[in-house]
Amino acid sequence: MVNGIERPLDLLNASKGKEVMIQLKGEKQFVGTLMAFDIHINVVLDNAKEMENGTLKKNIGLTFLRGDTIIFISPASTSLKR
Amino acid sequence: MVNGIERPLDLLNASKGKEVMIQLKGEKQFVGTLMAFDIHINVVLDNAKEMENGTLKKNIGLTFLRGDTIIFISPASTSLKR
Amino acid sequence: MVNGIERPLDLLNASKGKEVMIQLKGEKQFVGTLMAFDIHINVVLDNAKEMENGTLKKNIGLTFLRGDTIIFISPASTSLKR
Amino acid sequence: MVNGIERPLDLLNASKGKEVMIQLKGEKQFVGTLMAFDIHINVVLDNAKEMENGTLKKNIGLTFLRGDTIIFISPASTSLKR
Amino acid sequence: MVNGIERPLDLLNASKGKEVMIQLKGEKQFVGTLMAFDIHINVVLDNAKEMENGTLKKNIGLTFLRGDTIIFISPASTSLKR
Amino acid sequence: MVNGIERPLDLLNASKGKEVMIQLKGEKQFVGTLMAFDIHINVVLDNAKEMENGTLKKNIGLTFLRGDTIIFISPASTSLKR
Amino acid sequence: MVNGIERPLDLLNASKGKEVMIQLKGEKQFVGTLMAFDIHINVVLDNAKEMENGTLKKNIGLTFLRGDTIIFISPASTSLKR
Repeated sequence: MVNGIERPLDLLNASKGKEVMIQLKGEKQFVGTLMAFDIHINVVLDNAKEMENGTLKKNIGLTFLRGDTIIFISPASTSLKR
Repeated sequence: MVNGIERPLDLLNASKGKEVMIQLKGEKQFVGTLMAFDIHINVVLDNAKEMENGTLKKNIGLTFLRGDTIIFISPASTSLKR
Repeated sequence: MVNGIERPLDLLNASKGKEVMIQLKGEKQFVGTLMAFDIHINVVLDNAKEMENGTLKKNIGLTFLRGDTIIFISPASTSLKR
Repeated sequence: MVNGIERPLDLLNASKGKEVMIQLKGEKQFVGTLMAFDIHINVVLDNAKEMENGTLKKNIGLTFLRGDTIIFISPASTSLKR
Repeated sequence: MVNGIERPLDLLNASKGKEVMIQLKGEKQFVGTLMAFDIHINVVLDNAKEMENGTLKKNIGLTFLRGDTIIFISPASTSLKR
Repeated sequence: MVNGIERPLDLLNASKGKEVMIQLKGEKQFVGTLMAFDIHINVVLDNAKEMENGTLKKNIGLTFLRGDTIIFISPASTSLKR
Repeated sequence: MVNGIERPLDLLNASKGKEVMIQLKGEKQFVGTLMAFDIHINVVLDNAKEMENGTLKKNIGLTFLRGDTIIFISPASTSLKR
């Protein structure tokens, strides 16, 4: 599944159109479909849900997230294998 | 609705002239009409309202927001679909 | 009133010589006449007043503010329309 | 074992495909297989586990970590020699 | 008095050799004679006094201040007009 | 002993292969053999020990430290002369 | 005494080989002989002493300090004139 990941952004590229979980500084998380990203790790999520400590706080819909506050981005297909 | 979003700034571009919700670091939010933005994610909002934890704190009118303190920007048309 | 704002700095340019309210990180605000600004959002205010939570704390007169600590800048003519 | 480490990134390069422990600001740690990194120290881990103070908090699977929040990265083969 | 201030650094230039008050992040202030500054807003003050909440804490003499921690710089001739 | 230190990085260069003490933001320290460093002050230590307030917390072995969290780096040969 | 200080770094240059006091973010200070500095305000001190709120905490000897955490640097010859 991790074939072809030479550089960190390759994982984001491979996750386009798929569900990801994004952890922000502080205890906020976002879950949504990754639509776009850039080298600053600014991202656009569709159907974004704001979570706090794992519980749904708000449906945000389409949203632009600044890379600056992001700790990690994880494709849901792998994060759901727990 | 999310057609044509290749890069994160495309969403901001598509949101010009429309209402957006902007979440800042700390618990402040702004709601207003997106007039302009740049690559630093500095933005100008018209009819801006400062919110704190979802309640109106102040009407600010036309305002310039530095990108540095922004966590996310969400078009209201999608954030209102909750 | 917001005609001709293509880029965020256009609002600052249109506000030169006029009263603005500047919100800093922390609870400090400055009110004063915008004399100058640059791309780092460093600004010079004349007749600056330091406010804290909306009450006057100090008259500072002419002052140089580093862009780094600024959250938003709002022309008073619009912020007074509340 | 540390032959050929001329520059700091040489250690990361030598650790590709191996288990590493990554300490973040705050008390979070990640353990996982280092798949990729770049000059910003953005990394991709496979089979990532989020730890807090040494105990497993979550299995995250494949994940992208922004370099910005990383304090140190240590190959497990050496960190296990305690 | 504010004639000829086109750019923010013009105020600093016009304040060379004069007394300024410098507010740092945290509650520290410095008062002293502005000897030099650069584009990072690093400054040198002579006869610097460290103040905390308006009371003298230490005479520091000649000192180099990193721009990074500065919030605002105000010429004393205007700040004394309160 | 400090002959030939023209630039700050000269001290780091002269400390390669020797034991250093590294103080991080927060109360963490690392002691270990300096293997490599770069202009961002990213460093690699061998036989690294994580200390907190002067007591051993963990043996980490070989480790990569991001420069961003470092306050100071001191060669042990001089810091042991207390 | 302050003749010839055109730019802030001129003061650091004039202080080479002399005792300086360096205030860090947080309440830490360092006193020592300034051996070297660069444009990032990274410095090397010899005979460095770590102080906290004015009392000696540790003799550190020769040390490399990252500019990032420095608030101000003051030549002791002037700071001792209190």
